[in-house]
Amino acid sequence: MSGLTHFDDSGAARMVDVAAKEVTLRTARAESLVTMQVTTLAMIRSGDAAKGDVLAVARLAGIQGAKRTGELIPLCHPLGLDAVEVQFEFVSEQTLRIEVTTRVHGRTGVEMEAMTAASIAALTVYDMCKAVDRGMLVGPTRLLEKSGGKSGHYVAAPATTHGGSSIRTD
Amino acid sequence: MSGLTHFDDSGAARMVDVAAKEVTLRTARAESLVTMQVTTLAMIRSGDAAKGDVLAVARLAGIQGAKRTGELIPLCHPLGLDAVEVQFEFVSEQTLRIEVTTRVHGRTGVEMEAMTAASIAALTVYDMCKAVDRGMLVGPTRLLEKSGGKSGHYVAAPATTHGGSSIRTD
Amino acid sequence: MSGLTHFDDSGAARMVDVAAKEVTLRTARAESLVTMQVTTLAMIRSGDAAKGDVLAVARLAGIQGAKRTGELIPLCHPLGLDAVEVQFEFVSEQTLRIEVTTRVHGRTGVEMEAMTAASIAALTVYDMCKAVDRGMLVGPTRLLEKSGGKSGHYVAAPATTHGGSSIRTD
Amino acid sequence: MSGLTHFDDSGAARMVDVAAKEVTLRTARAESLVTMQVTTLAMIRSGDAAKGDVLAVARLAGIQGAKRTGELIPLCHPLGLDAVEVQFEFVSEQTLRIEVTTRVHGRTGVEMEAMTAASIAALTVYDMCKAVDRGMLVGPTRLLEKSGGKSGHYVAAPATTHGGSSIRTD
Amino acid sequence: MSGLTHFDDSGAARMVDVAAKEVTLRTARAESLVTMQVTTLAMIRSGDAAKGDVLAVARLAGIQGAKRTGELIPLCHPLGLDAVEVQFEFVSEQTLRIEVTTRVHGRTGVEMEAMTAASIAALTVYDMCKAVDRGMLVGPTRLLEKSGGKSGHYVAAPATTHGGSSIRTD
Amino acid sequence: MSGLTHFDDSGAARMVDVAAKEVTLRTARAESLVTMQVTTLAMIRSGDAAKGDVLAVARLAGIQGAKRTGELIPLCHPLGLDAVEVQFEFVSEQTLRIEVTTRVHGRTGVEMEAMTAASIAALTVYDMCKAVDRGMLVGPTRLLEKSGGKSGHYVAAPATTHGGSSIRTD
Repeated sequence: MSGLTHFDDSGAARMVDVAAKEVTLRTARAESLVTMQVTTLAMIRSGDAAKGDVLAVARLAGIQGAKRTGELIPLCHPLGLDAVEVQFEFVSEQTLRIEVTTRVHGRTGVEMEAMTAASIAALTVYDMCKAVDRGMLVGPTRLLEKSGGKSGHYVAAPATTHGGSSIRTD
Repeated sequence: MSGLTHFDDSGAARMVDVAAKEVTLRTARAESLVTMQVTTLAMIRSGDAAKGDVLAVARLAGIQGAKRTGELIPLCHPLGLDAVEVQFEFVSEQTLRIEVTTRVHGRTGVEMEAMTAASIAALTVYDMCKAVDRGMLVGPTRLLEKSGGKSGHYVAAPATTHGGSSIRTD
Repeated sequence: MSGLTHFDDSGAARMVDVAAKEVTLRTARAESLVTMQVTTLAMIRSGDAAKGDVLAVARLAGIQGAKRTGELIPLCHPLGLDAVEVQFEFVSEQTLRIEVTTRVHGRTGVEMEAMTAASIAALTVYDMCKAVDRGMLVGPTRLLEKSGGKSGHYVAAPATTHGGSSIRTD
Repeated sequence: MSGLTHFDDSGAARMVDVAAKEVTLRTARAESLVTMQVTTLAMIRSGDAAKGDVLAVARLAGIQGAKRTGELIPLCHPLGLDAVEVQFEFVSEQTLRIEVTTRVHGRTGVEMEAMTAASIAALTVYDMCKAVDRGMLVGPTRLLEKSGGKSGHYVAAPATTHGGSSIRTD
Repeated sequence: MSGLTHFDDSGAARMVDVAAKEVTLRTARAESLVTMQVTTLAMIRSGDAAKGDVLAVARLAGIQGAKRTGELIPLCHPLGLDAVEVQFEFVSEQTLRIEVTTRVHGRTGVEMEAMTAASIAALTVYDMCKAVDRGMLVGPTRLLEKSGGKSGHYVAAPATTHGGSSIRTD
Repeated sequence: MSGLTHFDDSGAARMVDVAAKEVTLRTARAESLVTMQVTTLAMIRSGDAAKGDVLAVARLAGIQGAKRTGELIPLCHPLGLDAVEVQFEFVSEQTLRIEVTTRVHGRTGVEMEAMTAASIAALTVYDMCKAVDRGMLVGPTRLLEKSGGKSGHYVAAPATTHGGSSIRTD
């Protein structure tokens, strides 16, 4: 299993040694989709400071989740983030798209911070709306882009079916 | 937005007052799917204590993530969990299914703990394998079942398309 | 120092033994004031989902801070909160008042959770606005009311000078 | 609301991008006052290792609170602190003054760490003494000084009324 | 491996299901020894509020560590502690003994909280003194007593060699 | 008490100011012993993915514990670790040896991270096996080696009695 860097030769899990890597600016972008009933999405969309702003809560949960990544993902390095941004977009009548951008100067990449933030934001949308729509799909979450470090620039291929409408029909 | 219990009449977010609810046994089951390349799944499947056990790491991350739910999801009540179990199943050549069961004696349900645990376990699988398969889809995560409390027993409808193979084609 | 229950007879700090106390419903209310320039308060007041909602961020920080009280205040008991509410009121041209209500079924009171939540919410207002008003006064925070448990019902005397305008003149 | 850097143009909260800023030595000093009954302050003052040292507990709570700032204040950057010092001074018969100094090499300032540490130390004094003096005023907390970074050196104007005796009369 | 309750029949780690157990008062006592140079112990012993109180810091670290047990030990249940006490005794010229007592009303025992608190307190003594004595031995930590729950009362046999002087000779 | 750097001249605890120190690569190695019944060790040794892998759980707990050191040890600096490795060795029929290596680029040493990780891993072994062997000895933990920084290279003298068999006889 030589490809899995989180294990040593004996199969023991480890936090990979990045001491020899250079500190460079590293960025990542991840997205998470939340698929729900048409009426639930409409309710979120109409929310504002007066009626209850689901997305404002989810955005903060995502930003704060990014900062806890090193505690949540066992073999992640703790990182001092330079920036976290969380954006929302309604990509269909049933689907909310969450995009997170993270940046850090560090010896290792910041993908897991973006992935974790997007997932926590998506889970928070579920928590806020579960009283009216228990069947919501939280995710999938995927990496869109990363840059910085030796492994270079990665850009994900476009998803062929977006928004998950094919996997949620009620 | 009367249906969204996490907001009061003025639209302000709040931790819902459950003081008047009874302490009962509450359970939840959630699942998360991870979709990946055939070779990645084969690598995970062949893992053991000698080669590197991806699922053992993900299982622990899920159990520990369940305990952090109250910190991660802003309006969740902190809960003293009675049980957390994380199980894995390979449901196709490309798809790993993670199922989490949570139990608590409390005044509020334990769905978010199951959903969060499943998501963190799935994110950990991604972290362990991202060096060989950056395009993995983490999730979707969904609630399968809940019981206990006034709102009664909920069982999710079967998903029409399982495993997300329709949304991952490379 | 017999009155200070957090020390034993030898002067050693301890988490007070509440094992013999009964589980009862306990509530607390605390307030924190934030005093600032007239223009800063006007800016906060005009904020909404489109322009930037300082109070929505502070409210969530307060709710989440309440849940961390047992970690932050060394001799506090960890408590499973039943409810946390954070409300805002502009009590003068310069002063924002934050009121937090907490509730729990437990063997010990929930005052520190209310005080901590109010303080963290107030600190967050400072953080959001410090770029335009570094001289803001964060607090004072005080207990307004507590009930439940053997020590009975406490209601604070009205403050003689409210809003701190006498201690902020620029 | 262009002055509030924690929001983007659409009003969405974000962790400000500091990736382009230079790493420099940044320091901050903050103070928090705690106003109490004359007998309470006398009790704290007489405390030592044999009778119970309130300030020793509060000092540690402050130092540890500084390290949690990034978790507590939603939009703060996580920082690796170089130094935290907490000092106490009795400034009147009723008033304890807490002063915290923080230092870091980083891309952003360390004011919130000093403010948070001072507030947590003050809350801990309240917790230790609340059994004998529930009406204590915790705070206000204010920034005294900051240096480092582009925005330069800031020194607070002296407070005109110190120690809060005008707002606590019982 | 049927004796190891933290694994299910397939060998998967789990948080044991305690939902069917009764809530009873459970207590535990644990000790940890710290063995050091004679001069180091003398330095600790002479410490007080004026010179620097190593044990006051270690005591607080132990109490706070008890509260974090559920986060640190992967398969531990999160528990709402009723009491934590940390006591120190100099049992030889080279050996400090730390004893921790924990109490909780819960469905599972509180041994790990006592063991963890004793270990964290001992590690903190090391941290405070390492500049003058890097070779200190931290531990061993062992369970002295537990009561409550179905498994009944356990009292450890007296240690035959106390204080570890036989394993530290410099 | 001039040797104890964690106190200032007045005896007040502080987080030592390391702002003037250089960032260098710092490493540490620590070990912790766990002494148990012969049958318990045999059970751990036979464990694998099918029967229950005690050491895999303990290893992860150690790695994650290293990341929490700054929260657990009151006066430790928060550090962004570059590497954590946890290794196990059976050094006698009754004794498991845990060795942890930590690495960081920082202004202060990484000994406490290695010591804490080794202790948490050892406590986790106890937790996993306590149902069959309550009398296990957890520790002692000691520093084996450190390098980097002004104080230079430290290598511990070999322990004269290894494995603690002399202090565990049942």
